[in-house]
Amino acid sequence: MIKAGIIGSTGYAGQELVRILLGHPNAEIVWYGSRSYIDKDYSEVYGNMFELVDAKCMDDNMEELAEKADVIFTATPQGFCASMVNDEILSKTKIVDLSADFRLKDVSVYEKWYKIEHKSPQYLEEAVYGLCELARDSVKKARLVANPGCYTTCSILSLYPLVKEHMIDADAIIIDAKSGTSGAGRGAKVANLYCEVNESIKAYGVATHRHTPEIEEQLGYANGAPIVLNFTPHLVPMNRGILVTAYASLVQKYSYEDIRAVYDKYYKDEYFVRILKKGVCPETRWVEGSNFVDVNFVIDERTGRIIVMGALDNIVKGAAGQAVQNMNLMFGLDETEGLRMPPLFP
Amino acid sequence: MIKAGIIGSTGYAGQELVRILLGHPNAEIVWYGSRSYIDKDYSEVYGNMFELVDAKCMDDNMEELAEKADVIFTATPQGFCASMVNDEILSKTKIVDLSADFRLKDVSVYEKWYKIEHKSPQYLEEAVYGLCELARDSVKKARLVANPGCYTTCSILSLYPLVKEHMIDADAIIIDAKSGTSGAGRGAKVANLYCEVNESIKAYGVATHRHTPEIEEQLGYANGAPIVLNFTPHLVPMNRGILVTAYASLVQKYSYEDIRAVYDKYYKDEYFVRILKKGVCPETRWVEGSNFVDVNFVIDERTGRIIVMGALDNIVKGAAGQAVQNMNLMFGLDETEGLRMPPLFP
Amino acid sequence: MIKAGIIGSTGYAGQELVRILLGHPNAEIVWYGSRSYIDKDYSEVYGNMFELVDAKCMDDNMEELAEKADVIFTATPQGFCASMVNDEILSKTKIVDLSADFRLKDVSVYEKWYKIEHKSPQYLEEAVYGLCELARDSVKKARLVANPGCYTTCSILSLYPLVKEHMIDADAIIIDAKSGTSGAGRGAKVANLYCEVNESIKAYGVATHRHTPEIEEQLGYANGAPIVLNFTPHLVPMNRGILVTAYASLVQKYSYEDIRAVYDKYYKDEYFVRILKKGVCPETRWVEGSNFVDVNFVIDERTGRIIVMGALDNIVKGAAGQAVQNMNLMFGLDETEGLRMPPLFP
Amino acid sequence: MIKAGIIGSTGYAGQELVRILLGHPNAEIVWYGSRSYIDKDYSEVYGNMFELVDAKCMDDNMEELAEKADVIFTATPQGFCASMVNDEILSKTKIVDLSADFRLKDVSVYEKWYKIEHKSPQYLEEAVYGLCELARDSVKKARLVANPGCYTTCSILSLYPLVKEHMIDADAIIIDAKSGTSGAGRGAKVANLYCEVNESIKAYGVATHRHTPEIEEQLGYANGAPIVLNFTPHLVPMNRGILVTAYASLVQKYSYEDIRAVYDKYYKDEYFVRILKKGVCPETRWVEGSNFVDVNFVIDERTGRIIVMGALDNIVKGAAGQAVQNMNLMFGLDETEGLRMPPLFP
Repeated sequence: MIKAGIIGSTGYAGQELVRILLGHPNAEIVWYGSRSYIDKDYSEVYGNMFELVDAKCMDDNMEELAEKADVIFTATPQGFCASMVNDEILSKTKIVDLSADFRLKDVSVYEKWYKIEHKSPQYLEEAVYGLCELARDSVKKARLVANPGCYTTCSILSLYPLVKEHMIDADAIIIDAKSGTSGAGRGAKVANLYCEVNESIKAYGVATHRHTPEIEEQLGYANGAPIVLNFTPHLVPMNRGILVTAYASLVQKYSYEDIRAVYDKYYKDEYFVRILKKGVCPETRWVEGSNFVDVNFVIDERTGRIIVMGALDNIVKGAAGQAVQNMNLMFGLDETEGLRMPPLFP
Repeated sequence: MIKAGIIGSTGYAGQELVRILLGHPNAEIVWYGSRSYIDKDYSEVYGNMFELVDAKCMDDNMEELAEKADVIFTATPQGFCASMVNDEILSKTKIVDLSADFRLKDVSVYEKWYKIEHKSPQYLEEAVYGLCELARDSVKKARLVANPGCYTTCSILSLYPLVKEHMIDADAIIIDAKSGTSGAGRGAKVANLYCEVNESIKAYGVATHRHTPEIEEQLGYANGAPIVLNFTPHLVPMNRGILVTAYASLVQKYSYEDIRAVYDKYYKDEYFVRILKKGVCPETRWVEGSNFVDVNFVIDERTGRIIVMGALDNIVKGAAGQAVQNMNLMFGLDETEGLRMPPLFP
Repeated sequence: MIKAGIIGSTGYAGQELVRILLGHPNAEIVWYGSRSYIDKDYSEVYGNMFELVDAKCMDDNMEELAEKADVIFTATPQGFCASMVNDEILSKTKIVDLSADFRLKDVSVYEKWYKIEHKSPQYLEEAVYGLCELARDSVKKARLVANPGCYTTCSILSLYPLVKEHMIDADAIIIDAKSGTSGAGRGAKVANLYCEVNESIKAYGVATHRHTPEIEEQLGYANGAPIVLNFTPHLVPMNRGILVTAYASLVQKYSYEDIRAVYDKYYKDEYFVRILKKGVCPETRWVEGSNFVDVNFVIDERTGRIIVMGALDNIVKGAAGQAVQNMNLMFGLDETEGLRMPPLFP
Repeated sequence: MIKAGIIGSTGYAGQELVRILLGHPNAEIVWYGSRSYIDKDYSEVYGNMFELVDAKCMDDNMEELAEKADVIFTATPQGFCASMVNDEILSKTKIVDLSADFRLKDVSVYEKWYKIEHKSPQYLEEAVYGLCELARDSVKKARLVANPGCYTTCSILSLYPLVKEHMIDADAIIIDAKSGTSGAGRGAKVANLYCEVNESIKAYGVATHRHTPEIEEQLGYANGAPIVLNFTPHLVPMNRGILVTAYASLVQKYSYEDIRAVYDKYYKDEYFVRILKKGVCPETRWVEGSNFVDVNFVIDERTGRIIVMGALDNIVKGAAGQAVQNMNLMFGLDETEGLRMPPLFP
């Protein structure tokens, strides 16, 4: 059994890690870290876990945890993991960091967008960007995995084949993304109160959202050259789910079959990426509670553009599910272990 | 492997059976019956099942199905199962009927509340009312199980210990129940459109809801004498979940510990019934997607009444989950097999 | 023009006062009090008021306000109004207090349920309980009106005719109430976050909710003797609306027409109380944004009980609308002035 | 008093016309047309109108209605108005058509996108496209007004100043729009059931939505040359509201002040168009129930693009409110008459 410790286990992503790991045949949770709820029963913080989790919340002592755990998940605010990680810890345990600390290779980009100093830039090179479908082999050998962001996972997987095959104009990519409210976290803020979110939709972080450089960096690798793009997130009155609608100009006239072929090339054998049938648009309800990403596209011959759509559950494939997928790879397990639950509907 | 056939697999309860059975280690689905969608890919009707279910919807030929299946789930409108079941079918296969056809022992009560003729009253005696926690031994030997209603499961389990131990006045029970909208089914009706249900709450079927006699009959057995009570369902703008708030007069002064002791007596060892800690009210969000029933109570010393609350997921413990729990018992499996998934939150 | 000052104008009830008064032909707002947002543009706190309200939030200086305003609305936490009101203020201006400070005539009951000391018990006798339909004449002459609570308005108006005419057993009244989330206020609490409230329903304050003694006191006056009853509020995932489902035993056999006659007796000429047609259940969606209360009842002959239902918008008739209705009466205006807006649907 | 007849009064837009006209000081409704509910009380179809509307639903006899009404609103499916209108009717009454029949000047474009034959192309030239802010003078003289679509109103008003002033590349406009579910109408379809819409978001009609040519035509006039663009609508789990997020490449470097100046130029004196403060994104909650359109923009210097956002209530400014605004203009009234209600929040 893999002994797993979770730091930040009382955030939404942390709790989802708990849910998934409880059903994982090869892992057990040995540490429910939560600075905010130390010594409180975990099941008092999350009533769904009553009689399923008999543990108290603990502090975030990473040194001690490294002794006890084979893998540590840090579902913590930006800056935490970078400030704690060191050689000794990495010599004893593996880390899957759900924050942004090790996602961007260029420390100056990190510091510019996140507006905090990076405390461990020396690990940036080693850290593997854990988008499993694109970095499977590296993840298998990694000690430190940077678990991708929710918007980024959806955006990158939706566009990757087109960028990689240079079928779209890399200078004219526009990503319009929509997220459920769990993405905003469990902090007590007026803006996230039920009555403020319900019955409304808005864009936020326009031209400034921190997932932008992460998408640009990863798609840039696929492109073989830097990419600058527009990314606009929106807040949707629902609990879970991200939908990405991306727009790009095709570099020449392609048929449906042409495009479909490249999606098949990259994703046909990917368990968690479902290329929908022609004409079917991804909907977040069809992936809720699962680790799937549903993708599809429509060619608009009138404008010469392609509209690519992707849907995932932001706290599963966009956070905790992908983190477990990374853990599976790091420990030589079947990548889908503990993650084959069908989406829950309605 | 238990070969399972589902008639009515494209209703919400039927689809939940699919979801649960896909994760069941000892069962496989051999028949996706759906009169409305014959020959259509199941995954076109429920996009969550894309790449998980590779089958077409079939008709509801129970004769043929009896040859192929070890168990048939009928998630069908009232009257269907009663009109199809016969000795030959029951000699070949087991049936878990999710409709009301075999829930009420008295055919005249059935015909009065459901306003249809019962076509197979000869099986009423044999049929076992499959509220597993209360009828475990009978279910194990049954060929034909009447799977309880959603409101009834929640109402009965909430009140059973108090009635059985004669701690409340059996003539003054009031059950105020609230249900998510999946309970209304997937039929295309104006009243169930998004904009009609959203941002509203209403009572319906006041003094006439068909789950009333079912609750009365089962609690009557516990009481050792007939019970007549008030039951009022409400429609709540959410997908899943039932909350029951029941009111009853205590026959004498009892302490919290007195009452708690009888709940423990009946439920302490029940995996799926969670008696919450003192002061914690059941909430439907804590059971969503799971087979749990959360129960608790508050004594109001001012009025001498007890307020009992129960919460479950109407399409799991209130329908498909309990049906699988019954199947497990009927086939000698661990009752919780395939049903230990933690609740999904948020 | 009546000059109106609002203290607590940035809570949900305060903002609704602004919305209603903006459309009132005989009133203008001269003071937008908000301790939390002093000096901030009101329209930055509530974007709907952009270009409609050109004012900054001010402090809660009641002395100064008394000089400027003909009427002060205190939409403030319990204790505020009682701690501020004095003879000088009351000599200069009228007060409609939306808090509970002057609703309960017995100061010991107030202090027991609210757990704070009452700072101005000397005004309790003078204060008029402003349930306009029942206290119209007193309100007209009042300087200090205690605006009723949201649950209480709905509960009292639903049950009043039956209690007043002694048609039900006053010792066996059970009120099961359901409220939208705006009733919880705009404070930043985890329990009221979107993801915590959405897709769930729960009871809260069971046997301890502070609206209980208020309902009991007012129905006790109608009854001519004290009443003790059960009141259980529930939180519903919607913005606005309260639904009350009340249960009571009829003291003898009554026909529909008997009961209907007494409802007509009290409410036939009431503009804001709508007695629905036989068989129609109140739904909160039909009163949203309006000052209406929809009521109806069902007689359950099987149990000898009557189920009474009432629906209103908790921040209109349950708060700001009723406050303006009181203001209209206090200033000799048509009671419906500024309040005849039809409900908004969907 | 203007005598108004409504054909299609039981759809969501029709009902909103009723709500608005009930509060209009210069209009009264003389005909509640509804083919589906003939002879039924209007208030049985819409319970909010109980005791406010005392009328039965009538058929859609436009001949008879022309005799009785000064203005007819046709809130009907595509094709209805075109098949009914004739010279005699237009000689007796004015028409505001809420369908698409007279929005597109080129009949072949209409027939291509709507896939029905146009029965009255002879009135296309006369018909005025009633986007009041842009066509005020023509509307004043019109007999037949084509009331714009909901998505189109929001899209056009958001982009108009930039197109008109040639500040953006007219060949690279991308409009990503999000709508509440009332836009799907009140027809009983499985896809619009509560449980199907709730907790999900999806794109639909990708590259084929019928509002596309309408936006293109109107923006083409502003541009002085044809425009072809991408328009993608999305369904959002909320009742009301449309949010448009539009992307375009600036033809040169502009400052915030440059862009703001052109928005001010066109909208500064428009009552219903609110240009938000710098940095504030439009949110649908701030316009709900009102006739306002909130617009704003962000310049992304990294990509040289501008992101323009607009929010309105799809059944007010996107349908019934704008229809009344048109009526006001056609009858020489103040354009805002009956339409100054503040947005309802929460």
